[in-house]
Amino acid sequence: AWAQSKVTVYGLIDAGFAYERNSRTGQDVKAIQSGMLSSSRLGFRGVEDLGNGIKAIWVIEAGILTDTGQPQHANNFWGRQSYLALAGDFGSLGLGRQYAPEDGVNARFDPFEHGSGGNAGNVMKAMAIRADNSVKYVSPKIGGVTGTLVYGFGEVAGSTRAGVYLSGALEYGQGPFEAGFSFERMRDKADTVTGRKFQLGISYDFGLVRAYAMTQADRDVEAAVPTRGADSNQYLLGLSAPLGRSGKLLASWVREDDKDAADRDADMWALGYVHALSKRTDLYGVYAHMVTHNNPALSLGNGQNAAIVAGADRSVNIGVRHRF
Amino acid sequence: AWAQSKVTVYGLIDAGFAYERNSRTGQDVKAIQSGMLSSSRLGFRGVEDLGNGIKAIWVIEAGILTDTGQPQHANNFWGRQSYLALAGDFGSLGLGRQYAPEDGVNARFDPFEHGSGGNAGNVMKAMAIRADNSVKYVSPKIGGVTGTLVYGFGEVAGSTRAGVYLSGALEYGQGPFEAGFSFERMRDKADTVTGRKFQLGISYDFGLVRAYAMTQADRDVEAAVPTRGADSNQYLLGLSAPLGRSGKLLASWVREDDKDAADRDADMWALGYVHALSKRTDLYGVYAHMVTHNNPALSLGNGQNAAIVAGADRSVNIGVRHRF
Amino acid sequence: AWAQSKVTVYGLIDAGFAYERNSRTGQDVKAIQSGMLSSSRLGFRGVEDLGNGIKAIWVIEAGILTDTGQPQHANNFWGRQSYLALAGDFGSLGLGRQYAPEDGVNARFDPFEHGSGGNAGNVMKAMAIRADNSVKYVSPKIGGVTGTLVYGFGEVAGSTRAGVYLSGALEYGQGPFEAGFSFERMRDKADTVTGRKFQLGISYDFGLVRAYAMTQADRDVEAAVPTRGADSNQYLLGLSAPLGRSGKLLASWVREDDKDAADRDADMWALGYVHALSKRTDLYGVYAHMVTHNNPALSLGNGQNAAIVAGADRSVNIGVRHRF
Repeated sequence: AWAQSKVTVYGLIDAGFAYERNSRTGQDVKAIQSGMLSSSRLGFRGVEDLGNGIKAIWVIEAGILTDTGQPQHANNFWGRQSYLALAGDFGSLGLGRQYAPEDGVNARFDPFEHGSGGNAGNVMKAMAIRADNSVKYVSPKIGGVTGTLVYGFGEVAGSTRAGVYLSGALEYGQGPFEAGFSFERMRDKADTVTGRKFQLGISYDFGLVRAYAMTQADRDVEAAVPTRGADSNQYLLGLSAPLGRSGKLLASWVREDDKDAADRDADMWALGYVHALSKRTDLYGVYAHMVTHNNPALSLGNGQNAAIVAGADRSVNIGVRHRF
Repeated sequence: AWAQSKVTVYGLIDAGFAYERNSRTGQDVKAIQSGMLSSSRLGFRGVEDLGNGIKAIWVIEAGILTDTGQPQHANNFWGRQSYLALAGDFGSLGLGRQYAPEDGVNARFDPFEHGSGGNAGNVMKAMAIRADNSVKYVSPKIGGVTGTLVYGFGEVAGSTRAGVYLSGALEYGQGPFEAGFSFERMRDKADTVTGRKFQLGISYDFGLVRAYAMTQADRDVEAAVPTRGADSNQYLLGLSAPLGRSGKLLASWVREDDKDAADRDADMWALGYVHALSKRTDLYGVYAHMVTHNNPALSLGNGQNAAIVAGADRSVNIGVRHRF
Repeated sequence: AWAQSKVTVYGLIDAGFAYERNSRTGQDVKAIQSGMLSSSRLGFRGVEDLGNGIKAIWVIEAGILTDTGQPQHANNFWGRQSYLALAGDFGSLGLGRQYAPEDGVNARFDPFEHGSGGNAGNVMKAMAIRADNSVKYVSPKIGGVTGTLVYGFGEVAGSTRAGVYLSGALEYGQGPFEAGFSFERMRDKADTVTGRKFQLGISYDFGLVRAYAMTQADRDVEAAVPTRGADSNQYLLGLSAPLGRSGKLLASWVREDDKDAADRDADMWALGYVHALSKRTDLYGVYAHMVTHNNPALSLGNGQNAAIVAGADRSVNIGVRHRF
């Protein structure tokens, strides 16, 4: 009935071997896992030129646990991304399920880019990686600066406040120096508490090595992140360094500083190596280690999976990542 | 192993803003919704020429709630369509999950084509939009007339009657005048009652405006449509009119006339405007309004979603529809 | 972000009419079914040449019940196959959800190739058709012989044994004679029992007819195959014969010889005809019949579906199979 258009089918499959151990209980597991360095996925997308410099852009993207064939998101199959946007000189305006600006900044200043046992998100828990029912505006880049704002409707009948999500970011990237600031504000659906989060990250490319630093302040996030106390601060220091023509070393330290009375702190160290077999295929190995105080509900999961062993504090990931 | 064939990936993404209000309780909601004017979907289809004028045709098509990434049909992912058909001069014969003729006629004579808050289906409830386990025959067009017949097997072991679905339609379309008649007959799986439905629709294109009229008679539909009494009649009057080079105005009135003792009647009015940005992308806005008597279980949903606010009787939809 | 690659979309849709009857209770059903001769499916796959004769290969493949649009596997949507492999002169090494060698041998020496009411698997129950969390090695073909080994991790925290799956096969195919041997070993997740299975199949192409023979020995398979006693032997004799330019006759007899005290035996006979309309599309008809002793929990299902009628011992399948 309508003019045929071009649909792009794209994705990524990442598979490998994982070892996890809880050194307090001695329990461990060996496993084949999906998406350790980058989440396995299948996506469809398209662009239409509407004239006057305006484009319609759509994306639907499903996460896949390739070790078992399960969808990553049990209830929302297309749970990685699903939106329709209009883009032009003014930036882009999208509607649907979309990445939160807070997550973009957090992944950008994590040398492990939210993947593997070294995933900063093992400690720096997001309130929302993606926002349902959202409007997202991304500005054009002006003087190296991009602004992003997401508003997620709560869609609770009779309430204009319950479930509402708001997050914004300013990011700078031009030359060797990069910086990002974000805030996040989320009211729970039961309308009892508003979590707030602030985040600042910087990185600098010294040539031989890129250095990263990031800090977060979490306030009243207990409803959004039940594994976490109400208030905490987090800190990250990291680096990445090219090694030969195809290699890249990654390292980070992430600290959880709990501000609640329970004082459940943690320190995570991670070391990784990624080797490019081609532009689209990498081999990788990552070791991560966590030391905790007063038993926080933290474990070393990886990019796509929660830890198999509850309270895992040692983790080895060895795998292959293939983009298509 | 087998000769490579051409698969067509196609679909539609429709996203926008919805406002719904129940004016009796005062409850309302603002939301980002998917598929308000036309249901968001992703489909795959192909055709093979078998020689002698015979073709094999297949379609699998999934509905997608792009506001959250959820499948539209929780249990049957490919719930919009999934069938294999053989087609030729004799018409086409398909096996699988297929549209009911009753739905085809209802959508054809609804100016809103079953989309938005103005969806005639908000009042004219279908017994079955699609039929599982079905055989569908569509005749060739002869003198402007097409016949369609669907038989859906009940597949209840030990019964030849429980769950059986039968629907047929005759449709005429040639020149400015169009007409359609359909019947529908559905036995519930528990084998207690047989719902019947009859429908007649006409439209005429006067040039400046196309006018629509449709009527339905529902008998014993309580098992198939639990929100509805056993018997009722429904009436629709509508029009659509081109507005400038790219616009189209839509309007309809739909009446529910309940024939049961409870006498739960309703009147729905809807007004909409669709503006084509390109052959594949439209902007739209629709306002719908319902007046009810004796509290029928009716709400203003839209093409793809039930109402968020129970008993919503005011609805505004503003969105973008993009085909690919 | 990355170089565009070529994704192949492929699949198969098989739809038709089924009649099943339990001749003891007299219960029967008529149905439209999906995937009777070959399971209906949609898949995506790709290959990247990494240089040095090494390739990266990926596959994700979903089973589809096209009669209703449901996924074949309710929990693991991509449950037919989902893996990433590296392949070269050394063979191929894959990670993910992959076919068990045991299943490959069983399908190869069943004239019905695991499809229709004549599916040998109606009697010869697999412990695992596919293995989750698995490493699979397939050797190159040397002197007509291929070796396959699959190890599936149990992934039960704290146990190195619970849930572990191991299966291997040696297959010979060159000229008219083919042979295959496989073993299978599966520990249940609760770590109570280890099922073992051994299988030997041969076939010989006499030109006018190909003859098949296969035998299985099952030991302690009760945890993996709850419908089966602990120990049993099975036997198959079959043949396939070309009929004219486009036809093929299929026939088989399969015996279940239960070695437990309950002695629940069965004999299944099946006769089928497949007619190629083109390289990609076939018509087929199959009749199957089962005689049981002491009430084994066996029924005549087909390639993709369990029996609708519990204990069905008569089955007719008539359908169309289309590959794309």
